[in-house]
Amino acid sequence: MARTDMTLDELRNYRPQVLEPDDFDQFWGDTLTEARSLPSDVKAERVDSPLTSFDIFDVTFAGFAGDPVKAWLTLPKGAEGPLPAVVEYIGYGGGRDLPGAQLHWAAAGFAHLFMDTRGQGSNWGTGGATGDPHGSGPQTPGFMTRGIEDPQTYYYRRLMTDAVRATDAVRELPGVDPERVAVNGGSQGGGLALAVAGLVPELVGAMPDVPFLCHYRRAVDICDRDPYAEITRYLSIHRGAVETVFSTLSYFDGVNFAKRAEAPAFFSAALMDQVCPPSTIFAAYHSYAAEKSIATYDFNDHEGGAFQQRLRQISWLKDVLAR
Amino acid sequence: MARTDMTLDELRNYRPQVLEPDDFDQFWGDTLTEARSLPSDVKAERVDSPLTSFDIFDVTFAGFAGDPVKAWLTLPKGAEGPLPAVVEYIGYGGGRDLPGAQLHWAAAGFAHLFMDTRGQGSNWGTGGATGDPHGSGPQTPGFMTRGIEDPQTYYYRRLMTDAVRATDAVRELPGVDPERVAVNGGSQGGGLALAVAGLVPELVGAMPDVPFLCHYRRAVDICDRDPYAEITRYLSIHRGAVETVFSTLSYFDGVNFAKRAEAPAFFSAALMDQVCPPSTIFAAYHSYAAEKSIATYDFNDHEGGAFQQRLRQISWLKDVLAR
Amino acid sequence: MARTDMTLDELRNYRPQVLEPDDFDQFWGDTLTEARSLPSDVKAERVDSPLTSFDIFDVTFAGFAGDPVKAWLTLPKGAEGPLPAVVEYIGYGGGRDLPGAQLHWAAAGFAHLFMDTRGQGSNWGTGGATGDPHGSGPQTPGFMTRGIEDPQTYYYRRLMTDAVRATDAVRELPGVDPERVAVNGGSQGGGLALAVAGLVPELVGAMPDVPFLCHYRRAVDICDRDPYAEITRYLSIHRGAVETVFSTLSYFDGVNFAKRAEAPAFFSAALMDQVCPPSTIFAAYHSYAAEKSIATYDFNDHEGGAFQQRLRQISWLKDVLAR
Amino acid sequence: MARTDMTLDELRNYRPQVLEPDDFDQFWGDTLTEARSLPSDVKAERVDSPLTSFDIFDVTFAGFAGDPVKAWLTLPKGAEGPLPAVVEYIGYGGGRDLPGAQLHWAAAGFAHLFMDTRGQGSNWGTGGATGDPHGSGPQTPGFMTRGIEDPQTYYYRRLMTDAVRATDAVRELPGVDPERVAVNGGSQGGGLALAVAGLVPELVGAMPDVPFLCHYRRAVDICDRDPYAEITRYLSIHRGAVETVFSTLSYFDGVNFAKRAEAPAFFSAALMDQVCPPSTIFAAYHSYAAEKSIATYDFNDHEGGAFQQRLRQISWLKDVLAR
Amino acid sequence: MARTDMTLDELRNYRPQVLEPDDFDQFWGDTLTEARSLPSDVKAERVDSPLTSFDIFDVTFAGFAGDPVKAWLTLPKGAEGPLPAVVEYIGYGGGRDLPGAQLHWAAAGFAHLFMDTRGQGSNWGTGGATGDPHGSGPQTPGFMTRGIEDPQTYYYRRLMTDAVRATDAVRELPGVDPERVAVNGGSQGGGLALAVAGLVPELVGAMPDVPFLCHYRRAVDICDRDPYAEITRYLSIHRGAVETVFSTLSYFDGVNFAKRAEAPAFFSAALMDQVCPPSTIFAAYHSYAAEKSIATYDFNDHEGGAFQQRLRQISWLKDVLAR
Amino acid sequence: MARTDMTLDELRNYRPQVLEPDDFDQFWGDTLTEARSLPSDVKAERVDSPLTSFDIFDVTFAGFAGDPVKAWLTLPKGAEGPLPAVVEYIGYGGGRDLPGAQLHWAAAGFAHLFMDTRGQGSNWGTGGATGDPHGSGPQTPGFMTRGIEDPQTYYYRRLMTDAVRATDAVRELPGVDPERVAVNGGSQGGGLALAVAGLVPELVGAMPDVPFLCHYRRAVDICDRDPYAEITRYLSIHRGAVETVFSTLSYFDGVNFAKRAEAPAFFSAALMDQVCPPSTIFAAYHSYAAEKSIATYDFNDHEGGAFQQRLRQISWLKDVLAR
Repeated sequence: MARTDMTLDELRNYRPQVLEPDDFDQFWGDTLTEARSLPSDVKAERVDSPLTSFDIFDVTFAGFAGDPVKAWLTLPKGAEGPLPAVVEYIGYGGGRDLPGAQLHWAAAGFAHLFMDTRGQGSNWGTGGATGDPHGSGPQTPGFMTRGIEDPQTYYYRRLMTDAVRATDAVRELPGVDPERVAVNGGSQGGGLALAVAGLVPELVGAMPDVPFLCHYRRAVDICDRDPYAEITRYLSIHRGAVETVFSTLSYFDGVNFAKRAEAPAFFSAALMDQVCPPSTIFAAYHSYAAEKSIATYDFNDHEGGAFQQRLRQISWLKDVLAR
Repeated sequence: MARTDMTLDELRNYRPQVLEPDDFDQFWGDTLTEARSLPSDVKAERVDSPLTSFDIFDVTFAGFAGDPVKAWLTLPKGAEGPLPAVVEYIGYGGGRDLPGAQLHWAAAGFAHLFMDTRGQGSNWGTGGATGDPHGSGPQTPGFMTRGIEDPQTYYYRRLMTDAVRATDAVRELPGVDPERVAVNGGSQGGGLALAVAGLVPELVGAMPDVPFLCHYRRAVDICDRDPYAEITRYLSIHRGAVETVFSTLSYFDGVNFAKRAEAPAFFSAALMDQVCPPSTIFAAYHSYAAEKSIATYDFNDHEGGAFQQRLRQISWLKDVLAR
Repeated sequence: MARTDMTLDELRNYRPQVLEPDDFDQFWGDTLTEARSLPSDVKAERVDSPLTSFDIFDVTFAGFAGDPVKAWLTLPKGAEGPLPAVVEYIGYGGGRDLPGAQLHWAAAGFAHLFMDTRGQGSNWGTGGATGDPHGSGPQTPGFMTRGIEDPQTYYYRRLMTDAVRATDAVRELPGVDPERVAVNGGSQGGGLALAVAGLVPELVGAMPDVPFLCHYRRAVDICDRDPYAEITRYLSIHRGAVETVFSTLSYFDGVNFAKRAEAPAFFSAALMDQVCPPSTIFAAYHSYAAEKSIATYDFNDHEGGAFQQRLRQISWLKDVLAR
Repeated sequence: MARTDMTLDELRNYRPQVLEPDDFDQFWGDTLTEARSLPSDVKAERVDSPLTSFDIFDVTFAGFAGDPVKAWLTLPKGAEGPLPAVVEYIGYGGGRDLPGAQLHWAAAGFAHLFMDTRGQGSNWGTGGATGDPHGSGPQTPGFMTRGIEDPQTYYYRRLMTDAVRATDAVRELPGVDPERVAVNGGSQGGGLALAVAGLVPELVGAMPDVPFLCHYRRAVDICDRDPYAEITRYLSIHRGAVETVFSTLSYFDGVNFAKRAEAPAFFSAALMDQVCPPSTIFAAYHSYAAEKSIATYDFNDHEGGAFQQRLRQISWLKDVLAR
Repeated sequence: MARTDMTLDELRNYRPQVLEPDDFDQFWGDTLTEARSLPSDVKAERVDSPLTSFDIFDVTFAGFAGDPVKAWLTLPKGAEGPLPAVVEYIGYGGGRDLPGAQLHWAAAGFAHLFMDTRGQGSNWGTGGATGDPHGSGPQTPGFMTRGIEDPQTYYYRRLMTDAVRATDAVRELPGVDPERVAVNGGSQGGGLALAVAGLVPELVGAMPDVPFLCHYRRAVDICDRDPYAEITRYLSIHRGAVETVFSTLSYFDGVNFAKRAEAPAFFSAALMDQVCPPSTIFAAYHSYAAEKSIATYDFNDHEGGAFQQRLRQISWLKDVLAR
Repeated sequence: MARTDMTLDELRNYRPQVLEPDDFDQFWGDTLTEARSLPSDVKAERVDSPLTSFDIFDVTFAGFAGDPVKAWLTLPKGAEGPLPAVVEYIGYGGGRDLPGAQLHWAAAGFAHLFMDTRGQGSNWGTGGATGDPHGSGPQTPGFMTRGIEDPQTYYYRRLMTDAVRATDAVRELPGVDPERVAVNGGSQGGGLALAVAGLVPELVGAMPDVPFLCHYRRAVDICDRDPYAEITRYLSIHRGAVETVFSTLSYFDGVNFAKRAEAPAFFSAALMDQVCPPSTIFAAYHSYAAEKSIATYDFNDHEGGAFQQRLRQISWLKDVLAR
């Protein structure tokens, strides 16, 4: 790996114009109102796990269009009183895995809701359990261009709505303090955390780790790896669809969500990231409208800070909650 | 490229056991009865094309679940009397392209129906126009594992039904002789041609060119390239789903369709094919229940015989029709 | 793929200095005079093809040094009166294929002469039939450095002369209107079309599609793919030959041909083209001395506009002819 | 990925001859006697971690030559009574990471000792803290050929001794039941677990997961990936060292350790494993002298069963302990 | 690298049928008679080199068709009496380089004639100076298919004739003992040494090192690397030329030359050779009609024994000469 | 290959700030004083080689910490009087090979000392014979991060001390004129030559060829190939060690050695070098404090000028000595 995007100095000064549709707030207002008009259908069944230091629950809640979305709720064994909660979203291609795969947040004393990603989960790990019961027009293999011909049909409209609804659902779960909900995730999970930070005002914190789904136009120009390159491939076939595609994507751009955020945020970026180029992340970071900080990893590719960043996030969130 | 599958001698003697479900005929009987119970909704609108040697029509017909499926009908300009028709299916990832992209069959005096592939079309060429308005459970990016958890929900149930319905539709189109319909296609298109040969008794000929979708178990074992490898990847994540997956696939295996075929067939296989290994094709070829022949290309990868094979197909079909 | 060359804005302003030899016109004047002093030996034999919508002829004409060059002439069946002709040149490594492989121009009502490429044809497709009966000094495998030690012996002197002579030959063929001859081609074929546009004054149009053979110095600096990289490899071995090599190439640079063009032209360039970088094409485009336009494909690699560009070319040429 | 080694049927019948030195037991007897003659110097310092569901200790103990070896001891918070312990070894290139990275064994109620790997840790994860203060002769980059010219100086003599000494050390640690110690690890960690199973008689169980370090001769013949390929590269340079190298390796071959094992074992192997080919693992498995079982993952590369296998191991070990 | 061809045991028993044309001897008899009927035109000009331990001469001689072929003659400074000579041929793509690049044979007391390869030299090293002034029909880039449509026009007819003529020429050079001429070379150079061993009866020894140009049919079947793969690519385009191509190649197959050899030979083969698979070499080795031995390198790719093999060759040749 | 670093014009003006520790001279003064305080233990045993034009000696001398370091001394046979000597260092991963592998310097009339590289030699060629009997902390496979946590323990402290001591040792060898010692080497060998030029005042010349080990910060930023990328990988795991690592490296940076050089130097750089980017070399070149010149190869990757550069070096050194 080597650095192929901007230097740290350039990143610190990078404030590009990013397309923002006039009806962005309308679009999302309508979308969320519609989703929230359906019953939340939150269920939590205790899982029989050998990991006896934790209580794990198989959670189902109604996401976009009321579709059932799965998640794992993990609580430290015998926790007293309502706990602050962290809703975590997953990177592209992964699923919620088997119960207990991710223990760090719960081990640190948080209620941890690990949301499955609709239709995904079959690329790495041990799978997911949430379908995406919506078809699409012609698309490149993957999720980046599913329904991209219109913001209404775009896959990420559904997934981001799920992500918002997960923060609604977690507040209804046993052992969770509904006043203290934060969001977290890496890569696609970071992009979702950022979207939720822009759509849900009452969070205590957002921790987008090497976030994906930011500043698509630059990403597509400079990044030759999937998943961004799925969009490039689509545009290389649908040669007349350039304007339509970027118009759709502007409703789902982390830069636009960042402008609307109210919770403090702790970002990360890796300067040799070939999957989520740091300039696309800094574009969102500089737009972030609330208190913010960012950890940079100068010599890392998309793995970023790995477990070290997780430990920093835990400390950061404990500090924020302690204020 | 080098040979990585069997030698020609081995291929000639390769007759593997391939899983066949007891209710295979029931499954397809029900599926097609249901599809044919819906109105065919065949429409054909003349296209304004600069390719004035041909008459081109934008065709829509009702495929699986009545979903609209697009196709181009291309006729030689001013053809007299009803023409024999060739229904052609497209390789994985391609779409019907712009009107007039494929002219060889019509130039040879056939009515040529070039069926779009639902949901596909965005990987190469100039795109398609047919969506797949059905969602799915967790899947690897692509079409090979979409709905694979059950034969009822599997993507290829829909696409193979479309392919059958295309042979129904072509008989309703102007200028077509409904008694003389053949099917053709390369790779995925060849797999569809083979499926249709097993499901539609009254064809005059089938020309599966380096067909995909045959003998999945062996394909997955020996082939490390997409699209077969999409299945491998799925199984590597959904470790407990092996039996289910191959059970589903057995309803869509070219070997099983071949056993039911009645029309004469002209296959091809390339001995250095890294995408559709020749042994998977010979497994289907040897099972083919009607008159058959096969062209082999000893030093070719998945491109097979290319235009040379097309010319052979045209000659072969003219011979068959001349009997 | 990602963009690795200039942005569209930069391309629009890119007007580099490109080496032009003092005796460029002398060199080509002598070369063509010599070639035209030999009998053209144009022959056309009707081909027995199943593609009955067309009349196809196996054409031979005398190219450089009177060497026999093959081509296919394709006419719409039963065309009346002399037709405008399009001479098409082929991309690097391809041959004229079997008769009838390329039908679009003839289907649009043009006489289509598809010129074989001497010595090439064995990399993709179904082959060619024209040899290059001239040896060379030491060279890298391929055609880019064959005879590069002197403009007189360089391979492209022979091939470009063939290309010019093809426009002479087409005027002698049956069914062709000698006053209406255009040239076309993609990649190497585009480079040849551009060369012919600079060497043959009386054309009605030139359509270089993602042309190769332009601004070699920049191409070699920024492009690590064959065929340009054949030159880089040669220079990496023949370390003292830098000046000689670029001096030779300057006689064959599309930028220099463009300066001498008189016919209207319709170019194309792909902004993510890794084989023929767009800046090398824009260098030629900006130098083009006659009426011109260019289609750009922002997200495409070397495939450029594919069939969509072909349709645009047909419309463009029909418009030009209709004036 | 595709299968490139034997089929499952072939694996079940694969019982190769593997070189075993006459003085194997002498060599290891001497080595361990010498190591155990030094003070064990076991230290455990509580770590200040935000992962409050666990007690984590920074452990140091004397490994080979008394060199300090680091480990993390992780206990479920407030565990009562001495716990059964699992000593886990790490895959090639990884280190013990930061405290708390691996929680599953402790979450399941075990004392978990996660041993650092001397000199390694700088390829993936968040690093290690144990050096290898011994030099070597000429070697390929990596650890596979460090000191390979003699079993006495070979790197794995030191590392395997560390692994044995970790099982000694864990018995001295607070909260650990010295009668109930098991060993575990994946890849290189699996190879170490297997070595320890052959060298330490009083274990309650061994869980080698896709173990490395088995049947080197076959591995080197069929596997072109690192780390086995480090040996191939060494042999390709030191052309006269073939006998010496395989003689050295025979002292460190999992097949030979397996013959001496006394504890029940639960193996795993992945049938498409390109790093640790399944035949090398089955060679060890079939030689394993005690009660044994093996989980196979038919469509997996080196990731094998991932977290699913971890859950199976926990169940298996709980069952073994419950007898 | 890993072993992808036969095991050593299998190689020792591998005696395939290889196509041999009836008129093989006639073909080569005529070819050499014709070449030798032309004046040999041997010239040797002293080179001004800073490598003062040697006398280096720039040699030119008449090769096939009398074409001038270059070579370096290197003699140990002030050698007394006529020296035994080694004619060395170069691997594919290389040239004779600058004078003095190869010193080992001369340093060992031999007259060393290092023959340039016509048309080659521009892929690695510092180049050559010998052209191939003969054209060809359509070919893949490279030299393997140049003129392959007929044995008379095939490139290797010319190059092998040059190689024979080099042994004639060396006998005319100053300081050379014409009774003691051996041939040597690696890869293509090894193939040429083998050809010469079959065509020139009076040699004192032949040392084909990892020879290329043997048992083409198997090579093309199992080897996916250039240069053998140039033939595969040609056959994949010229689908009807299979018989012609292998018929041509049979006149140039090391297996057929080996059957006619009279001088003692010392071969080498590398068991992990991906460029010249060992089975193709053993096919020639087993056919070799005179005294022979072979060094095998079990863990090497195409580099084989490198300088170690060179030292062995020197010892072997000194032994042969000492008899 | 293509150019990915600066243009030649940019290189000529590139004068970056490079970190230089305050105690650089102290560090090296102490290191060398300590090394020279040990007996040099120079031994030279005549080797029995078939390369009878030369006298070859197997040399051992005391390197860092008195560790035995091997080398070959090669003299032209029967040389009269003390000869000027060239000490040559080897590229990364190579060893001194078998005696006589490198003959050019001796053939040109120099005493040639070819120093083995401690611990290396097992990546290419025919191996080395010098160990590195010093262990290290955690490291990435290879030599670039061995002991990098402190300048005192860094691998290159030992190797550069060996390189200095080789110039001491050569002066004690038979046939060598101690007043005329030059240093040379390519890649890592070039980096060592440059280090020695900065540490040993009394040389007659230094010839760093495409030198490695210069301007590490930029190298790591822009170069994604090993060996520089070993450092990047280390930093990607040891995320907190950035300052320490670059502080250590600053004691071993060719730029800092260059500032202290006194002998005339002849550098080389290749403009398409992907292993040792030309800007890192020019950074050292511009800092070089004595008379200097540089050969550039515009179209070469890391092979640079190859044998052509060797001939230039010989000429250059003869000129320097002739003054």
